[in-house]
Amino acid sequence: MTFSMSKALLPVFEIELPALSGILEKADAYASTKKIDASVLLNWRLAPDMFPLVRQVQIVADQAKNGSSRLAGVEAPRYEDNETSTDQLRARLAKTVAYLKTLDSKQIDAAADREITFPLGPNNKGQMKGGDYLNHFVLPNFYFHLAIAYAILRHCGLDIGKRDFLGAIPMKMT
Amino acid sequence: MTFSMSKALLPVFEIELPALSGILEKADAYASTKKIDASVLLNWRLAPDMFPLVRQVQIVADQAKNGSSRLAGVEAPRYEDNETSTDQLRARLAKTVAYLKTLDSKQIDAAADREITFPLGPNNKGQMKGGDYLNHFVLPNFYFHLAIAYAILRHCGLDIGKRDFLGAIPMKMT
Repeated sequence: MTFSMSKALLPVFEIELPALSGILEKADAYASTKKIDASVLLNWRLAPDMFPLVRQVQIVADQAKNGSSRLAGVEAPRYEDNETSTDQLRARLAKTVAYLKTLDSKQIDAAADREITFPLGPNNKGQMKGGDYLNHFVLPNFYFHLAIAYAILRHCGLDIGKRDFLGAIPMKMT
Repeated sequence: MTFSMSKALLPVFEIELPALSGILEKADAYASTKKIDASVLLNWRLAPDMFPLVRQVQIVADQAKNGSSRLAGVEAPRYEDNETSTDQLRARLAKTVAYLKTLDSKQIDAAADREITFPLGPNNKGQMKGGDYLNHFVLPNFYFHLAIAYAILRHCGLDIGKRDFLGAIPMKMT
């Protein structure tokens, strides 16, 4: 294969978004078994000034959706951020996987030198070349919120491991 | 720029390894101010069966060093895993940044379809094509341990934010 911007981006989301969905499914089963209201997990934080699990998962989907859309030069759909259950969060992740399939990978491949402008909080904007934006903003932010979501659930006692985090990767084991 | 395997990999480590070094420097100052023995932070875990901070940082360096070396087709240097202070961990990160500069980026660029074999725990081996190995093993593992190191310190009260995690990225702000 010839490596490219789209190949550094889309396959990651294709595997990691379902991986997070699988982790949330396990979290739901764990909450049922332990008779924990699922909202306790969804509102858990690692520190008082960090986002709770529900917001971490929303941002994971948004980094994939918004980052890829900006690189493809199209307007991303807006989500309402009103999920209150793991089922709704899993639907958001699935919707994002389906949306990413509609993007033109050639547009993403051609974006390495294109200047990308994106919101930074409510008042500021950031600007980076496409290649830098992929390397130093989209993927690190995506993985950050994915790993924090995982860490919140591990901290709450969920029995998951690195395999759950990596997802269904194309690896042969010997 | 033409995007490539080496461009998806080396610039990430060049920015993120110093970013983690900066976070550890802040952790050291925080421990001094709070009169916490620095080893308390280095041995902190988010869950009893997760690695402590010191091991998370070691693995961050190893993912960068070993992943890049395998893609470049060279033997990576071995580190002794004997760090007991943030200074020693920061030296490990700096040593890794210097080592990565010695790799031939053209070798990494040519590795997309090459079969990469790598250890999985003490007894098993994994095998993936180079492009998949970069996308679905090296970078996710690298970011995982980096984010967990960050999360341990946030959980312990260190005042750091997303900027510390992202590091000195080439971004213009408006």
